[in-house]
Amino acid sequence: MTQLSNVTYDEIEIGQTACYTKTVEERDLQLFAAVSGDANPLHLDEAFAATTVFGGRIAHGMLTGAYISAAIAMQLPGPGTVYLGQSLRFRLPVKIGDTLSVQLEVTEKRDRRKTVTLECKVFNQNEKMVASGTAEVMAPTQKVLIDRPELPVVEIRPHEQS
Amino acid sequence: MTQLSNVTYDEIEIGQTACYTKTVEERDLQLFAAVSGDANPLHLDEAFAATTVFGGRIAHGMLTGAYISAAIAMQLPGPGTVYLGQSLRFRLPVKIGDTLSVQLEVTEKRDRRKTVTLECKVFNQNEKMVASGTAEVMAPTQKVLIDRPELPVVEIRPHEQS
Repeated sequence: MTQLSNVTYDEIEIGQTACYTKTVEERDLQLFAAVSGDANPLHLDEAFAATTVFGGRIAHGMLTGAYISAAIAMQLPGPGTVYLGQSLRFRLPVKIGDTLSVQLEVTEKRDRRKTVTLECKVFNQNEKMVASGTAEVMAPTQKVLIDRPELPVVEIRPHEQS
Repeated sequence: MTQLSNVTYDEIEIGQTACYTKTVEERDLQLFAAVSGDANPLHLDEAFAATTVFGGRIAHGMLTGAYISAAIAMQLPGPGTVYLGQSLRFRLPVKIGDTLSVQLEVTEKRDRRKTVTLECKVFNQNEKMVASGTAEVMAPTQKVLIDRPELPVVEIRPHEQS
């Protein structure tokens, strides 16, 4: 079991960066649909999606938002962070098979409430920016070093045909 | 199989509302962790979470963001919508068992690019606002009436103990 650490408010420096990489798989669209309740055919139905301007299925925009939140929660500042706010601009469609890099950079620290602003940019494998935004968090004040919980194992079955 | 419809740009009126309700279950935290890669123990490890200011596990903030995106994609404006941007303010923790109501209200229409601004508020069962924000979307111009894709069936297994 690997361990998970954080970067405390005092340790955080303006200009500090972190990067989280994830390849978007077919199963991620299915899982995001299941967890959000968003069964929009643009994400689930290839025949429908092919008739749209996108020419095929695209990932839910907020799936990219989920990756940004994971980068913040797991890396910078990591465990103990309180998420206060996030702005998101969805710039380009994300398709199955795309490899996304979430890049975080600390742009501001405010001592009074130990809040930190992070600029968030998400690029695909062609170095095109698919999303961007700004996160505001309350950074941890205590150093944390804990066992990293394992992600649950998830199995997806197609629904029964009606 | 039920059908899914949308509200086109021409049909949308300022002040129009929609509401999407979802009870947050244990499995939703597991699924969101699996799909985002966010294994933060605040969401997955009750013993760790009990030592934090929250006194127990809370839902990932961006899970609430996922519900907002589902309300937009499924209801207002619904299928055919292009999601351009979202701001989110996480105001209060969301716990397992909370029933959230996502409330959308159209506040602005811009004819040039058929874009619409929606005010988004999320309340819990005690009528406390847990999150709020603003969405910007490009509304569909074509009426859509399609079979609603079934959500996939997802099974969660605990990971093998190491």
